[in-house]
Amino acid sequence: MKRLPTANGPSALPAINQRRLMRDLNAIGRIGIGNRGGVTRLVFSIKELRSRQVLIHLMRQAGLKIYIDAIGNIFGRLEGRDAKAPAVLSGSHLDTVIHGGKYDGPVGVIGALEAVRTIGENKIAIRSPLEVVCFVGEESSRFGFSTLGSSLVAGEVHAKDLANAVDAQGTKLADVLSSLGIPAKSLRGLARDPKSLKAYLELHIEQGPILEAIGKRIGLVTSIAAPSRFKVVFTGQADHSGTTPMEMRKDALVAAALLIEFIETTCRRFSSMAKGRVVGTVGAMKIEPGVINAVPGRTELLVDIRAVTAPAKNRVARLVKAQAQHIARQRTVGVEVLTIREEDPVPLDKRLLRLTRQICDARQIIYEIMPSGAGHDAMQMAKITPAGMIFIPSQRGISHNPLEWTDPDDIGLGTQLLMETMIRVANETF
Amino acid sequence: MKRLPTANGPSALPAINQRRLMRDLNAIGRIGIGNRGGVTRLVFSIKELRSRQVLIHLMRQAGLKIYIDAIGNIFGRLEGRDAKAPAVLSGSHLDTVIHGGKYDGPVGVIGALEAVRTIGENKIAIRSPLEVVCFVGEESSRFGFSTLGSSLVAGEVHAKDLANAVDAQGTKLADVLSSLGIPAKSLRGLARDPKSLKAYLELHIEQGPILEAIGKRIGLVTSIAAPSRFKVVFTGQADHSGTTPMEMRKDALVAAALLIEFIETTCRRFSSMAKGRVVGTVGAMKIEPGVINAVPGRTELLVDIRAVTAPAKNRVARLVKAQAQHIARQRTVGVEVLTIREEDPVPLDKRLLRLTRQICDARQIIYEIMPSGAGHDAMQMAKITPAGMIFIPSQRGISHNPLEWTDPDDIGLGTQLLMETMIRVANETF
Repeated sequence: MKRLPTANGPSALPAINQRRLMRDLNAIGRIGIGNRGGVTRLVFSIKELRSRQVLIHLMRQAGLKIYIDAIGNIFGRLEGRDAKAPAVLSGSHLDTVIHGGKYDGPVGVIGALEAVRTIGENKIAIRSPLEVVCFVGEESSRFGFSTLGSSLVAGEVHAKDLANAVDAQGTKLADVLSSLGIPAKSLRGLARDPKSLKAYLELHIEQGPILEAIGKRIGLVTSIAAPSRFKVVFTGQADHSGTTPMEMRKDALVAAALLIEFIETTCRRFSSMAKGRVVGTVGAMKIEPGVINAVPGRTELLVDIRAVTAPAKNRVARLVKAQAQHIARQRTVGVEVLTIREEDPVPLDKRLLRLTRQICDARQIIYEIMPSGAGHDAMQMAKITPAGMIFIPSQRGISHNPLEWTDPDDIGLGTQLLMETMIRVANETF
Repeated sequence: MKRLPTANGPSALPAINQRRLMRDLNAIGRIGIGNRGGVTRLVFSIKELRSRQVLIHLMRQAGLKIYIDAIGNIFGRLEGRDAKAPAVLSGSHLDTVIHGGKYDGPVGVIGALEAVRTIGENKIAIRSPLEVVCFVGEESSRFGFSTLGSSLVAGEVHAKDLANAVDAQGTKLADVLSSLGIPAKSLRGLARDPKSLKAYLELHIEQGPILEAIGKRIGLVTSIAAPSRFKVVFTGQADHSGTTPMEMRKDALVAAALLIEFIETTCRRFSSMAKGRVVGTVGAMKIEPGVINAVPGRTELLVDIRAVTAPAKNRVARLVKAQAQHIARQRTVGVEVLTIREEDPVPLDKRLLRLTRQICDARQIIYEIMPSGAGHDAMQMAKITPAGMIFIPSQRGISHNPLEWTDPDDIGLGTQLLMETMIRVANETF
């Protein structure tokens, strides 16, 4: 990764303690670390629960007032001058995917903690209270259910989904919750009163290659792209690969290949910012019978289409579904399209974005205004309070992988920017 | 399946006993039958060994002289007038794929048995001895090794391959053999003296849709297509599906899709009989990491290219390999092509084909002259003796599947034709 000079603009504010920040991040990163450096802290696993305990310890050390809600979201609060003022909330999550990295999530939790404890230590005057939050279960890796904690805080109640969610070992989420002493009905009371919040800020690694590629260290996020996810099933006929002439085949894999190519071509046509920066991916596929000497009789494709705007995303998703039908007709195979998830992109708060820009400009920090391709807790929090996000670069764009890496100086810079933003939001009419 | 009138041309010869034939075929078919009617008799499994025992019993009942070689190939012999004359051999195999059908293999073994016992019972004069054979391990389903028994009889010794072959449970073929009391070195002596054979004939289901589609009940096989099998591995980069812009991706699945499409298009161009009736299939694929929210970083395709002639097959295989390189360069992904198997098509004996045609013409049996897309024991036997094959229709072209089905009248007709051919080969100068 090309190194850039650190921000050197004027600041009347103290600097965060980068060494302490990295020490605590690494302490979290060691929990659930496996061979090849992969970190696995699936939500409600013993490792993930341990990481929360470490966070509570760190919050207590920092003198924060701790509140844990029914699902396990942890809030650590530093009071301001006005105890009745709505709080400025900042955080992210500590749970990870299977064999993930150290920074996806923890950077935003420990970064917010570092920002708040720097403010506390230096007795910086703040009007609104500040809160650090660790949301439970942002990753969908265990129960197929993402932003679990923040969506409950945002008042989304998914009683049915929660009751039905099951992990790969067949353990029900409902059973996990009751074994932890969490009654299902207590989840209804988690919604936070929007009046108690002034704003939500989240520091996160980009999880994409853009900042590194353009040589910038900070990304200011305009909106969070949301996916249309669906499954396409082509049903042809499994035949012997040696005895079935080409013209008598109903090859479900060739149909799938045509659709994969179409998705790529179409998304490239809509990839500019003006056209909604659409991305489309077939990430997984099942082939039956799936042996070298049989013409595939059935294929199942998992399609993920995202864009910065809902119309762009929906338009491309419609084109892809229509093309699936077209391919099926043309090749006389069956086709079925099953919706997995349908979400709309979430715009983040423009005033928060303007504020972070002002700080960056004053501090001569070179930033990029950009959308987020990945989902985040901020997506949920934006429903009840002005929300903003700060990105820092991901080396080679890699995340959800042991090779995920962000330069400690970038983590420090992002945390510094987060702190300065929190102070201004806490003190200004907003 | 459309029924056709049975052959009604003149024949001085007795008719085979179709009821007995079907009874014995069904007796074999019940061994290893599972739910949904699938038959599983993997080579050297307890079920497969039992099917051999039943065959030995049936051969003994028919009064044949039984000889079993070191690997377990079973020969049942009916002497002719001249004990020193080379034998007319006919048979196939009793082992099956996992969840296969009742007829792929057994039709050729029990058909030959029925032919020979009809000849014996009716005291039809024959000069050369007749032999019924059951070859061990024609299917590659257990050890990845096809036509095991017949290739040893044909003098192919694969000492290394045999030593290395392992099944899905991790059991070594070498250990299976030694547990059955078969010393490795005994396999070297299996090659049969070509002088002891006059011809090899094999009755088999087509395993393809052609005969049914054109409404014919008998296929006379000109040659056996052989596969070029290779693995293509594309190595791109696994990235987050939401955060990686289309133009920064190295999607290994899109590269694979382009190759799948190319294989289909190219094989269609070479699908006419004149161009070698090439067929090409991608039957299986691995995708890594294989999750909905990651751009595929690595794909592995299993490619199977077959043709009636070696030059056609080799030409298409070369085109496909070159295209894999081309796609990789164009999309800046890595590519590797690994040969799995390289075999040449095997022409069958023209005189035997002429003889079966004459019989069909005389008997007003409507036949099709055609290549075999699938491999068979005849492919090995053709190396040491004139070999011929008779096909009967497969309903909807299905085989290696519980739905595999052939009309009993077609099995009877094929067996009758086999018998008449065996008599003529045994009695004529050839």
